[in-house]
Amino acid sequence: MTAQLDSFYPTRVDFGTLDEIHRAAAAALPAEVLDFVEGGAGKEITLRENRAAFDRWRILPAPMSGVGAPSTRTEFLGMPLATPILTAPFGGDALFHAEGHPAVARAAQARGALSVVPEAGSFSYQRVRAAAPEAARIAQVHPFGHAAMVAERAARLGYEALCVTLDCPVGGFRTRNMANRFDPDQRHFAGNLTGADGAPGVAEVFGQLLKRGGMVWDWAELAIAATGFGLPWIAKGVLTPATAERALAIGASALVVSNHGGRQVDPAPASLDMLPAIRAAVGPEVPILLDSGIRTGSDVFLALALGADAVIIGRAAIYGLAAAGQAGVDRVLELLTEELRTLMILAGTPSIAAIDRSRIQRAA
Amino acid sequence: MTAQLDSFYPTRVDFGTLDEIHRAAAAALPAEVLDFVEGGAGKEITLRENRAAFDRWRILPAPMSGVGAPSTRTEFLGMPLATPILTAPFGGDALFHAEGHPAVARAAQARGALSVVPEAGSFSYQRVRAAAPEAARIAQVHPFGHAAMVAERAARLGYEALCVTLDCPVGGFRTRNMANRFDPDQRHFAGNLTGADGAPGVAEVFGQLLKRGGMVWDWAELAIAATGFGLPWIAKGVLTPATAERALAIGASALVVSNHGGRQVDPAPASLDMLPAIRAAVGPEVPILLDSGIRTGSDVFLALALGADAVIIGRAAIYGLAAAGQAGVDRVLELLTEELRTLMILAGTPSIAAIDRSRIQRAA
Amino acid sequence: MTAQLDSFYPTRVDFGTLDEIHRAAAAALPAEVLDFVEGGAGKEITLRENRAAFDRWRILPAPMSGVGAPSTRTEFLGMPLATPILTAPFGGDALFHAEGHPAVARAAQARGALSVVPEAGSFSYQRVRAAAPEAARIAQVHPFGHAAMVAERAARLGYEALCVTLDCPVGGFRTRNMANRFDPDQRHFAGNLTGADGAPGVAEVFGQLLKRGGMVWDWAELAIAATGFGLPWIAKGVLTPATAERALAIGASALVVSNHGGRQVDPAPASLDMLPAIRAAVGPEVPILLDSGIRTGSDVFLALALGADAVIIGRAAIYGLAAAGQAGVDRVLELLTEELRTLMILAGTPSIAAIDRSRIQRAA
Amino acid sequence: MTAQLDSFYPTRVDFGTLDEIHRAAAAALPAEVLDFVEGGAGKEITLRENRAAFDRWRILPAPMSGVGAPSTRTEFLGMPLATPILTAPFGGDALFHAEGHPAVARAAQARGALSVVPEAGSFSYQRVRAAAPEAARIAQVHPFGHAAMVAERAARLGYEALCVTLDCPVGGFRTRNMANRFDPDQRHFAGNLTGADGAPGVAEVFGQLLKRGGMVWDWAELAIAATGFGLPWIAKGVLTPATAERALAIGASALVVSNHGGRQVDPAPASLDMLPAIRAAVGPEVPILLDSGIRTGSDVFLALALGADAVIIGRAAIYGLAAAGQAGVDRVLELLTEELRTLMILAGTPSIAAIDRSRIQRAA
Repeated sequence: MTAQLDSFYPTRVDFGTLDEIHRAAAAALPAEVLDFVEGGAGKEITLRENRAAFDRWRILPAPMSGVGAPSTRTEFLGMPLATPILTAPFGGDALFHAEGHPAVARAAQARGALSVVPEAGSFSYQRVRAAAPEAARIAQVHPFGHAAMVAERAARLGYEALCVTLDCPVGGFRTRNMANRFDPDQRHFAGNLTGADGAPGVAEVFGQLLKRGGMVWDWAELAIAATGFGLPWIAKGVLTPATAERALAIGASALVVSNHGGRQVDPAPASLDMLPAIRAAVGPEVPILLDSGIRTGSDVFLALALGADAVIIGRAAIYGLAAAGQAGVDRVLELLTEELRTLMILAGTPSIAAIDRSRIQRAA
Repeated sequence: MTAQLDSFYPTRVDFGTLDEIHRAAAAALPAEVLDFVEGGAGKEITLRENRAAFDRWRILPAPMSGVGAPSTRTEFLGMPLATPILTAPFGGDALFHAEGHPAVARAAQARGALSVVPEAGSFSYQRVRAAAPEAARIAQVHPFGHAAMVAERAARLGYEALCVTLDCPVGGFRTRNMANRFDPDQRHFAGNLTGADGAPGVAEVFGQLLKRGGMVWDWAELAIAATGFGLPWIAKGVLTPATAERALAIGASALVVSNHGGRQVDPAPASLDMLPAIRAAVGPEVPILLDSGIRTGSDVFLALALGADAVIIGRAAIYGLAAAGQAGVDRVLELLTEELRTLMILAGTPSIAAIDRSRIQRAA
Repeated sequence: MTAQLDSFYPTRVDFGTLDEIHRAAAAALPAEVLDFVEGGAGKEITLRENRAAFDRWRILPAPMSGVGAPSTRTEFLGMPLATPILTAPFGGDALFHAEGHPAVARAAQARGALSVVPEAGSFSYQRVRAAAPEAARIAQVHPFGHAAMVAERAARLGYEALCVTLDCPVGGFRTRNMANRFDPDQRHFAGNLTGADGAPGVAEVFGQLLKRGGMVWDWAELAIAATGFGLPWIAKGVLTPATAERALAIGASALVVSNHGGRQVDPAPASLDMLPAIRAAVGPEVPILLDSGIRTGSDVFLALALGADAVIIGRAAIYGLAAAGQAGVDRVLELLTEELRTLMILAGTPSIAAIDRSRIQRAA
Repeated sequence: MTAQLDSFYPTRVDFGTLDEIHRAAAAALPAEVLDFVEGGAGKEITLRENRAAFDRWRILPAPMSGVGAPSTRTEFLGMPLATPILTAPFGGDALFHAEGHPAVARAAQARGALSVVPEAGSFSYQRVRAAAPEAARIAQVHPFGHAAMVAERAARLGYEALCVTLDCPVGGFRTRNMANRFDPDQRHFAGNLTGADGAPGVAEVFGQLLKRGGMVWDWAELAIAATGFGLPWIAKGVLTPATAERALAIGASALVVSNHGGRQVDPAPASLDMLPAIRAAVGPEVPILLDSGIRTGSDVFLALALGADAVIIGRAAIYGLAAAGQAGVDRVLELLTEELRTLMILAGTPSIAAIDRSRIQRAA
């Protein structure tokens, strides 16, 4: 009888929980690198609020719903997802594990997730895509003057969408990095600026723009550049309805509701707290990703219920990567998905689409 | 004069307080078993909220009420209760104390309480009932395909009601168990699946159903099966008015408002927080038990004031069992009842029926 | 210049702060006696709420008000108060310091405060009154059958008012005492039951009543007895408008809004939280004392602003008594009054009567 | 590329963060002096609330706003500010660093900030002004009978405005000082009462007034004296609309919304919590400074957004002074301004005037 009762009391080999993965990552990383990952801007209010916002909601059980085998399948901009999770385009990935984003993308591919590949990562768009072409379908870029060039190059490499990070014209006031005098080797952020596949001139353009000291395109400039992208583009760093509407007005195909993991404006509102108003403002059709604060399967459930179509994991993916490379990220995706699936059974939601506002309520 | 003043400053032999019993249980149990008992699902938000919900209410003193000797007597589905407390149908009871549910039921019988006897306990329905027939009057069952068979068998053994656990089609995402790689001997959960009194075929049916991976009856199937129960049945795991109404519509005679002690959906609402809306939805006549979070006599008072007819204690009973077997459970019941009685005097409520919404108010 | 600037940065000899007095008391008392003093009933929610309730309010500074020398003088039932503070009728005072309530009353007299002398103290009404007749003007009594006898006796001794404790028909569920198996020598509570000045029969009556197990007079009985008191009487243990109105209807001259320091009903509302509604219910003329939670001069200010005419200190007085006998209580009264006076200057309130609702606002 | 990416991950020499400066100050100061600086009155509720009030607000990111080089320039009463920060007129400055306010003012001058020079500091108005005439333009005075004399003297020394501290007719009930029997050498507070530049008679007048025990001018007296000031004057210690209106009615040119850093009335409301109502009461034209609680650049941003024109830093400046004299204060001003500038880029506010209520929202 033992084996048949196992599903009631799940046990795990390897990493049993996301906390274990976190601890393993913390043990593997130098303290200043861990702080770089874990830290936020200013007083880290937003960092904490990104987590606390999830605790303001409750999921309603729906027993006897007949949902024994829910499906976590969905899609984003036409790209299939076996689980509603994307990995974030975090830079400096080789600081966390030598295999960096290629390992992340391979794990995502194995689990049917997607990876957003960073411009400022340790590996080039080309190398990450080559490692896992079914996952590495979205290239991230900063909206500096070279963005159109980058877009052209990403399209040539087969990427199907661009993710434009709007909220980083200058680095946030990162208290822990300042305390640590953190000064990482910039090569870990230069995967797309050096090496054999770098398009001529990009490094120069990027450097020149940064020298201008935080000057960024305004919306009008972005609109002009966007027309040249040739790919659908996703506006990342949307935290207000006003920003959402502007991004859509100039042609964004999707939004990432995000405060950059609490690393830019502090005290900014939590991503999850702003999600409902943004969804209400743009209507039900615009694809929305929720980024900042996702650590558990219940977080995924709540984000979907409040209007997201899928979520982006940043730190959670980094923890997996630092803990065990591809296998660590794989386990993170597995645990998140498994908890999500358990909740879908218990809440009576057979599909991702069924996870809506009626399934949750505000905390007492 | 000393003896006459004693009632003002009560002192105790043996376990002085429920905290002491808890500490004794914690000392007696292996760490992973304690975690199995204490833990909840996910982030354990619901686990904490089940307790915190009680702190959102205040009891109003009513001095000079003339209530010197209140009665804690009541009844549930026609079964008398000397104190409005039932013990929960927790499985794996031999993990906590070799005497398991028979000891629990004997303690309940001695105190005039009732025991709900589990399907997945360490002892069979027959053995627990034999140990304490005045307490062991309700048999718990999971709504798998074999439920009708189990009901027939329970009725034959003299049980007077069935308690159908609705909210456990699959085990919750129990973080501590996963961290501990908790893998208990399944025989402790198989009291009704093996042994001389097992009806032929039950073990096979149960195993086969579980192999189907969480598939459960839906409401329609449950309705059909319920007609075959031959006993009044109690729907356990009700946390919303909608679930309450469905359960009553297909024939439930009573409800247990419960989130399974925070062990299934996390973050689900606290049981106590949902109780008033459920009571309002079903009206004053439906018997309701409140489960999840009861640890003190004031918790019992508040649950009754908010609409419950009696409460179920799970972890509190386990602590007593682990600490000292039957004597420990006895002391738990005594302490809960004594605090309840003290509060009834001070709040001016002569009877269980007098404990209503007018006796309490929201915390400031 | 040094001396002239001193008032800006006050320094103290002896006990510098109430915290020091508390620490000295904690060091002086056996652990179980300290727990007896500090503890509350049940989960001690009310104990904590009694303190937290003060933090829900803010005092508004009123600079340039011309109030340089405010007066803390007032009166209660015609008895003058140099500071709006009474000491509580706590029993068992010899457990805290050999000199007990006589020392408390002497300190109160020296500071122009009043003492409420307990029935269950270590010293008789006669001895406490003899020690400090200008402070020991109110005798406390429990409303058992002997109350009229006690009242007659107190009047004969010169007491000018009775304080009838309504909320103690049975001791609260005092968790710490139960944990400690606290079993104090009952002689410390028998100052009015033995000895040369005990009226014949009182001890027997009291004992007999207690044997009846918490039976108390109801309001009707109290009304009849009250007519025989021959003294104005104060209803102590009022926590709702309903209780206040009943007490006044049967002849009470004043009220003590109190939850017995969180020692009876837990979780009862905080005394301060209930004060405004009680004041509103009874109108501006009824004298009201606030008891439960006073530890600082700002607490006194807030209680007065919310409708009290004066406050009762229980634990704060015990801390002073335990720390240094009469001198300790004296210092407690001095520190409370000095902080109150400082706040009166800064809030622009020249008199106790000027401290009203307009001087405070709810916390943000 | 390394240098060009630096702005994304700022690193610091010397003190990396304000926390480091705080720790250095704590290490440099005797415990009782640190307590004198850090402590507040009473229970220190106001002290904590002054900080907590900032956490009740969130700043809204405004990506793609084109604000790459915002200006932090503004002015106060016609005096230019390169950053919207003034240093507070704290007394006893030589207790913190031998160079005291002259060092503070030099740091302010170097950063284009202003210093308010205290009457009760360790150095005279003359010496501080001589050290940094572009920063030391405002002299603080207490509204005792000698104020007109002080005003005349300050004007003669070239000061352009007076800051009249309204909220200190008597020292607050400073618990930590009382616990420490803090008795500082009063010469550290007598920079304007002794020495070569002391106007004859001032020390005597001040001493005589203090002997009167907290008697202060009332509004009428202040109005008469104010006419003799010959300088615009700033009312410091305004915490309610009523006080603001009275101060303006008798001729104040500007207000400092302040509760004296939680050192006077406790529990007073937080300065920031009262700012919006005061701004609403006096209209948009009256210059308002916010004092009490500023520790970070985000605090400055929020204070401006809620109605302040600039802020005053007290403890933050003392930490810098104690940590490293002028260099420490310089670094404090640099860090505050740098974080403010970063937030202005990210929130899309090109100027101080652009930081308004529309840029923030209440916390969830």
